[in-house]
Amino acid sequence: MPERITSLHAIEELLKRGELTAELIVDPKRGQFKSRIRHLIDLAESSGVRVVFTSADEMLRSFGRIEHRGAVLNLEGRAGISFKSVLKQLREPQQLVMVLDSITDPHNLGAILRSADQFSVDTVVIQSRGSAKETETVAGVSAGANAWVTVTVESNIRNAIDLLKKEGFWVFGADMQGEPITQIQLDGKIAIVLGSEGKGLRRLVRESCDRLISIPSSGHVDSFNVSVAAGILMYEVRRQQRYFSVEER
Amino acid sequence: MPERITSLHAIEELLKRGELTAELIVDPKRGQFKSRIRHLIDLAESSGVRVVFTSADEMLRSFGRIEHRGAVLNLEGRAGISFKSVLKQLREPQQLVMVLDSITDPHNLGAILRSADQFSVDTVVIQSRGSAKETETVAGVSAGANAWVTVTVESNIRNAIDLLKKEGFWVFGADMQGEPITQIQLDGKIAIVLGSEGKGLRRLVRESCDRLISIPSSGHVDSFNVSVAAGILMYEVRRQQRYFSVEER
Repeated sequence: MPERITSLHAIEELLKRGELTAELIVDPKRGQFKSRIRHLIDLAESSGVRVVFTSADEMLRSFGRIEHRGAVLNLEGRAGISFKSVLKQLREPQQLVMVLDSITDPHNLGAILRSADQFSVDTVVIQSRGSAKETETVAGVSAGANAWVTVTVESNIRNAIDLLKKEGFWVFGADMQGEPITQIQLDGKIAIVLGSEGKGLRRLVRESCDRLISIPSSGHVDSFNVSVAAGILMYEVRRQQRYFSVEER
Repeated sequence: MPERITSLHAIEELLKRGELTAELIVDPKRGQFKSRIRHLIDLAESSGVRVVFTSADEMLRSFGRIEHRGAVLNLEGRAGISFKSVLKQLREPQQLVMVLDSITDPHNLGAILRSADQFSVDTVVIQSRGSAKETETVAGVSAGANAWVTVTVESNIRNAIDLLKKEGFWVFGADMQGEPITQIQLDGKIAIVLGSEGKGLRRLVRESCDRLISIPSSGHVDSFNVSVAAGILMYEVRRQQRYFSVEER
C-alpha cells in the first residue's frame, strides 16, 4: 500500500533524494503555496517522478479529508523495506542501528529521526504495533528527516534483536540501571534499543539485549526526555566510533 | 509577585526539596487526586510549609480559571533570584551554565530543564521577554525538574554574557558554523548559549560569545531539535569536565 506524504517540506526532501517510485499529485490552483508547489513540480520532473495535475474537488474524492497544502506524494515500496535486507546491505565497519521499542509520541519519534539523520544512523527500527508509525505526522515533525533516514518496521522487536546479533552487532539496551556509557566501549557494530518514556524497555526486550547502558547523571527527577536520551546515545557511539573525524565538514 | 505551581508532580518535588517560602492551598474535597493531595499535605507539614484548606468555589475566586487538580503552591521569592547572586555562589572549579536566547516552545524548555537537572547544570538563564517563561506549563512538561534546577530570568542576555565573562567563564555560542565540540576543550567554567530553533542565535548575542561551537554531524536536514542539541552539549561538557567519575552512582 502506498504511503502518502503531505508535508511540503518532507515531499521536497524526498524528491531531492531521488530514486523514488512515486507520483506527485498537485492542485495547481492552490494559491497560498503556489511557488513552493511550482518548485516541487520542477524537482519531480527533474527526478523522473510523474506529476498528476488535479483539482481541489478531485483531491478530496481521492484522499478524503486528509490535510494537505495542494500536494500529495504517493510513495510506493518504502513500507516494504525489510530490516533483513537493510542489514545485509551494511558494509561499513562502524555501524549504528537504533531500535525503538514502544515509542508512541510522534514528536519524540520525529526528533529521534532528525538526530538519526544528523548522525547518519544506518537504520531506525520501529515496532509495527504500539508505536507511532512512520506517518505523516512524523514526517512533518521530523522536518523532512525521515526522507533521509532508512526506517524499517518490525512486528517483533525481539526478532530484530536476534537478527542483529546474528549479523555480529552488539545490542545495548538503554536502562537507568545500565553501565554508564562513559565506561563502556561502544565501537564496531552497535545497536541501541530504547523503550518508551516512563516505562522503559519491556522485560523480554531488556532480557534479549547483550548489555544494558545508561547516561551517567545525578538528577533528582526521573531521567531524560526519550528523544534527548536517544540523541546523547547516538552522539556518544559516533564519537567513540571516531565517525566525526571522517564526516566533518 | 508569587509564582503559582499547579502540577502535582512539580509541587511534590518542590516540597521534597524543602527550604521554601510558600503556602500550599488545597481543596480536600477534590476526589480524584485525594491520596496524592493527602501526601502533599504531609510533605508540606513536615517541611514547614503552611497549608490552607479551601473549597473549589474559593479556589475559583482566588485564582480564576487556572487549571489545577485541587492543589496550588504559592511560591514566594523564586522569581527574585538574581543571576549575579547565583554566579557569586558558585564555587566548584568545573561549572556549567546554560543560557537560552529566545527559546519559546515550552516543551523544548521543559525537556532542557530535565536534562539540566540530570547533568547538575549550575543555573539555566532564560530571557524575560520572547522566551517561554518558567511558567506552569514548563513545570508540568519538565516533569518537576524545574523544582531542582536554578532558573534565573534576565531581561538582557548580552548583560548575562558580560557578567559570565567577568566571572571567568568561557562563553560558547551554539552555531552550525562553529567548531566541532569533539575538537575543542570544554572544561573549567563553561557557559553555553543556545538560540531558538530555526533562527539560531541573534547576531548581537552571537557576537558577544567567546567562540562558536557545533555538534559534528552529516545530516541532510537542518540541525537537531533544540532540546536534543542542548542535551548533547551538556553531556559533552560534563564528560570533558570529568564530572561523571565523581557523580556516578
